[in-house]
Amino acid sequence: MKVSIIGASGYAGEELIRLLHGHPHAEIVHLTSERHTGEKISKLYPHLTHIYDNMLDSMEDVHRMAEDSDVLFIALPHGHAMKLVKAIAGLPVHIIDLGADYRFADTSVYEAWYHVPHTDPEAERVYGLAELYRDAIRGAHLIGNAGCYTTAGILALTPLVQEHLVQMDSILVDAVSGVSGAGRTPKESTHFPEFYDSFTAYGAVSHRHTPEIEQALSEQAGEPVTINFTPHLAPIARGILATCYARLADGVTGEDVDAAFTARYADEFFIRLLGRGAYASTKYVRGTNYCDISWHIDPRTHRVIVFSAIDNLVKGAAGQAIQNMNIALDLDERTGLDLVPMYP
Amino acid sequence: MKVSIIGASGYAGEELIRLLHGHPHAEIVHLTSERHTGEKISKLYPHLTHIYDNMLDSMEDVHRMAEDSDVLFIALPHGHAMKLVKAIAGLPVHIIDLGADYRFADTSVYEAWYHVPHTDPEAERVYGLAELYRDAIRGAHLIGNAGCYTTAGILALTPLVQEHLVQMDSILVDAVSGVSGAGRTPKESTHFPEFYDSFTAYGAVSHRHTPEIEQALSEQAGEPVTINFTPHLAPIARGILATCYARLADGVTGEDVDAAFTARYADEFFIRLLGRGAYASTKYVRGTNYCDISWHIDPRTHRVIVFSAIDNLVKGAAGQAIQNMNIALDLDERTGLDLVPMYP
Amino acid sequence: MKVSIIGASGYAGEELIRLLHGHPHAEIVHLTSERHTGEKISKLYPHLTHIYDNMLDSMEDVHRMAEDSDVLFIALPHGHAMKLVKAIAGLPVHIIDLGADYRFADTSVYEAWYHVPHTDPEAERVYGLAELYRDAIRGAHLIGNAGCYTTAGILALTPLVQEHLVQMDSILVDAVSGVSGAGRTPKESTHFPEFYDSFTAYGAVSHRHTPEIEQALSEQAGEPVTINFTPHLAPIARGILATCYARLADGVTGEDVDAAFTARYADEFFIRLLGRGAYASTKYVRGTNYCDISWHIDPRTHRVIVFSAIDNLVKGAAGQAIQNMNIALDLDERTGLDLVPMYP
Amino acid sequence: MKVSIIGASGYAGEELIRLLHGHPHAEIVHLTSERHTGEKISKLYPHLTHIYDNMLDSMEDVHRMAEDSDVLFIALPHGHAMKLVKAIAGLPVHIIDLGADYRFADTSVYEAWYHVPHTDPEAERVYGLAELYRDAIRGAHLIGNAGCYTTAGILALTPLVQEHLVQMDSILVDAVSGVSGAGRTPKESTHFPEFYDSFTAYGAVSHRHTPEIEQALSEQAGEPVTINFTPHLAPIARGILATCYARLADGVTGEDVDAAFTARYADEFFIRLLGRGAYASTKYVRGTNYCDISWHIDPRTHRVIVFSAIDNLVKGAAGQAIQNMNIALDLDERTGLDLVPMYP
Repeated sequence: MKVSIIGASGYAGEELIRLLHGHPHAEIVHLTSERHTGEKISKLYPHLTHIYDNMLDSMEDVHRMAEDSDVLFIALPHGHAMKLVKAIAGLPVHIIDLGADYRFADTSVYEAWYHVPHTDPEAERVYGLAELYRDAIRGAHLIGNAGCYTTAGILALTPLVQEHLVQMDSILVDAVSGVSGAGRTPKESTHFPEFYDSFTAYGAVSHRHTPEIEQALSEQAGEPVTINFTPHLAPIARGILATCYARLADGVTGEDVDAAFTARYADEFFIRLLGRGAYASTKYVRGTNYCDISWHIDPRTHRVIVFSAIDNLVKGAAGQAIQNMNIALDLDERTGLDLVPMYP
Repeated sequence: MKVSIIGASGYAGEELIRLLHGHPHAEIVHLTSERHTGEKISKLYPHLTHIYDNMLDSMEDVHRMAEDSDVLFIALPHGHAMKLVKAIAGLPVHIIDLGADYRFADTSVYEAWYHVPHTDPEAERVYGLAELYRDAIRGAHLIGNAGCYTTAGILALTPLVQEHLVQMDSILVDAVSGVSGAGRTPKESTHFPEFYDSFTAYGAVSHRHTPEIEQALSEQAGEPVTINFTPHLAPIARGILATCYARLADGVTGEDVDAAFTARYADEFFIRLLGRGAYASTKYVRGTNYCDISWHIDPRTHRVIVFSAIDNLVKGAAGQAIQNMNIALDLDERTGLDLVPMYP
Repeated sequence: MKVSIIGASGYAGEELIRLLHGHPHAEIVHLTSERHTGEKISKLYPHLTHIYDNMLDSMEDVHRMAEDSDVLFIALPHGHAMKLVKAIAGLPVHIIDLGADYRFADTSVYEAWYHVPHTDPEAERVYGLAELYRDAIRGAHLIGNAGCYTTAGILALTPLVQEHLVQMDSILVDAVSGVSGAGRTPKESTHFPEFYDSFTAYGAVSHRHTPEIEQALSEQAGEPVTINFTPHLAPIARGILATCYARLADGVTGEDVDAAFTARYADEFFIRLLGRGAYASTKYVRGTNYCDISWHIDPRTHRVIVFSAIDNLVKGAAGQAIQNMNIALDLDERTGLDLVPMYP
Repeated sequence: MKVSIIGASGYAGEELIRLLHGHPHAEIVHLTSERHTGEKISKLYPHLTHIYDNMLDSMEDVHRMAEDSDVLFIALPHGHAMKLVKAIAGLPVHIIDLGADYRFADTSVYEAWYHVPHTDPEAERVYGLAELYRDAIRGAHLIGNAGCYTTAGILALTPLVQEHLVQMDSILVDAVSGVSGAGRTPKESTHFPEFYDSFTAYGAVSHRHTPEIEQALSEQAGEPVTINFTPHLAPIARGILATCYARLADGVTGEDVDAAFTARYADEFFIRLLGRGAYASTKYVRGTNYCDISWHIDPRTHRVIVFSAIDNLVKGAAGQAIQNMNIALDLDERTGLDLVPMYP
């Protein structure tokens, strides 16, 4: 199985390389970077020295690369994938876009939140969150890989909205991410001395993962769901913890909540239910494709609080992409992803 | 002005020493530690070498120490202060308790959340949060210094509940603390390799700062307020960021919110209003007594999100205690606290 | 291939579990912990939930476990392995001791530095540093896995002392370790708030890895080599960087140094020579069995400075142990260890 | 006393602001930044909000600012100060340059290591390291503030070379710095996800602090001293730990070493001798002007190992500059610098 990565110089691209190296059926054939075309990937990422010293190509050759490849991962900022996908339309390659271009069923939502016109609204695509859309992903040729915060938020809340255990207008997602989610480009705000011993929020009421969470929850609920989503940055490199709040619907008990999680996720390999009263932690999923979920019931306010933890670069990006690839190509979805978290 | 610290070996006690060293009118006369009686404080805290090599006493001598002192700070786990205070009842010393024993007007609330009987319920005391209770603090002899999370939460929400700008049953406080808030005793969970690159919650629906926030907000609102409070630990040493959510009351606008913050806090030296659309950060208050506040309005869900940041050891503990001391003894409340945050 | 781990609750044991999970021929059959006998390993290490929920046994049953196993890893403090090994003498199991008991050819050196009598001095054993002793390791039944600092120091200096390119009495090893090397037991000095933003040394002139480095270098040099070794702790979890200094022998040039490194290590899979003028970094080997080496020549002082970087838990402990296992059992030595560093 | 800072937007400039705020006799009158002329300093450094909202000027007006000021701090990259100083020659202002331009008695050394011509070689200047050159600093109008690594290295070794207790050709300085020493400009190498959990060296055999250490040690020794200096970067924000090695001269004992340190430094307020067998740590001096020193003797190799710790932004930059200012203007040198380290 030949695999290429368009946009290999970012953290998602580089994490794909790490994970694909351990995939028994995948062979990396092309890597691209516009800023570093003609350089070795190991010059950008010295940890790859002697492992991958491949030369980086330009994505200008995407058509040739797509012809060479069974799977094409696109790890570029939003707006680029839709151009590339149109350019290679009709080729048999399976495309997995780690950006936002193909995540929305209704491209007007994309346009409203991303402030760019969508130039490929008719493309047949599936939303790449296997635990919700596995059947659609099977055999799919264009997959819009779910976002990082969105994966944590959607997986935490799906059993509750699907079973109507919560009041739909009461949902809040308060989430914290490691700074690898903000990419590799150095900024003053993430310069080590500035960022260490620091905790702050950003993107309140405006973060683009808001409508993506709403899309999935609305579909699961069978009715429109509007949420508040507030992201924060902690001085960690990897990991997302979502703390999700909702008011329980009348008469709903803790046992109902327990039952909904178990019913929905008991058979999901990558979801580990820690149970009521436990605490999910980013540390326990580090480097792996697991999503850990735990929950609490507050009898005083009749609210449920759900914690979900993922590694933003794995279940929130590269790992989920490989899970989607495995499903699309009819492999065991755990292939290459059956890893033990790196601890401590 | 002679000052003693009962419980000098914890972080709050040690931070009192740092801040009092720069206070022009305070002289430290006694320091106690039960575990380290007879040792030099600089042996426990080598950063104090040559600055404070004082011997640590036992609090068994509290009566003598109280007689020697104008001000007595108590920095002990809950349950201890009420015994000490009774033992020195009648002495003219001003007592500032950094623990929880004297924070509650209704000691049955204390008993319900702390699971111990309150043995000094009749003591005349004031709640030590100067921005709300300054007049009561003036001249007070027994001050229950406000808690760390509670300070951040109460200061963030007071203008909103006082002016009834929010629905009282919709308030959530989601907060993140540096691990110095958990004390100096080493635990596996805060062992460096375990805790670095990690983010998690704890104390959901059960943390004892919940009723303390509710007490103050209820008083400000003039009606009972019940909240959800969820604390988290980030791999930072100092700082609390509280992210507070509430549904706006009908017809309330962003301008109403702006006006309420300005009206309430414009004259407060230690509160810095960063304004609507800004982000408070723990880093910007580090080592100081400031509380930075910013807020956002979500027109889609008609919610207000308030961010407040403090240094948990300063405005959340030792700095607030000194601010209370200054007020109680009729000094300029900024004395010894007019510091520039340590950055980066 | 059945594998057991005596002492699974420490970081080396837990890292063995992580790496063995990806080893195609190894199956974990027994895990022991004296402090946690009867508990699930996933209770101690929640990141193992649903992956390894094995019950921890007591090492009292070591004879039975050794009979069940093809390979026995011992990850205990020094002094314990020699008792266990005697207890199972004669069994066909291959034993790899990650502690110090079987690292010294001359047990009087062990006794002098570890201050305990050696009770099994006659055991036939090999020193488990494959790049130097590969032939001896093949088929070996008792391997004293090399220490963490020692691996970094020995690999950095071997080509220089073997070729007599440096003055033997001029060697200094100044090294820095991540705190996982100090184990999982929480201490005040490694409590997160104490240890973050902190850098210090320990064990100057007395660290027990000193004689182990000297033993290997003396053997390579063919003459006694005495060194200074100074360890430091940085606020990182994993990794060792050794900065090694030596005065060049008369007439030795940079090219001689380059040639020695290349000649000695060009065929070593796990040693990556970054070359003269480069900088090895702990980050580039994280989670893997690589040892990166670079060097500089100072013409002003005629000294060579060699930098070597390893992951203390992998090439410095569990990875090296598996490499030794692979060699001992005649597998490709890369089996289960062909990993990409986890970055960032 | 009116004070201006040329180059206020870097960490040294910003730290000057923090420390000068607590100086009873200093008033800040001008701050400059070429990149941010016309902006508020509190926009660049939000932690200064409401404390210093001063507008940043351009240094084009340096003549006017120098006329307005009693003291002018220059915190610019090397090469700039010598132009400014010439432009204001003859004014009565006291100039303290935190850069390298005025640190060298022999400007040809400066030119050889900094690769720029020195355009003001005749200026009368003193080297700003009070513990060695206090008398010369008194009343001085142009002070070349000592560098950060150099301060740590020189203070660690001065008693030993001055008393000829060590072999002069055997000296090595192996040092580790927090990344604030590398400035505020974000780089990939110090981007949080890259730099956390990472340890590496840089500038081996070429770092410009080498000749500065040699200049001072040669002067103290009365003979030329050539050293090796190797800097490293640890994931800490502040602090330098220098680990210094030297071979003891024949017959020198540990007691001789002890006596030399005590004799030289017993009366120095900012030097804290922790003694033989102790370990200096960056954490214990954080935020203060202290230099902590400890040492060890290795009888096996007859070497002495000296550890010295400073805060690179305080004793290594801004604090030392204020100490120099105090001496130059005949104030108690502790004024504004009698601080307790911020811990934890």
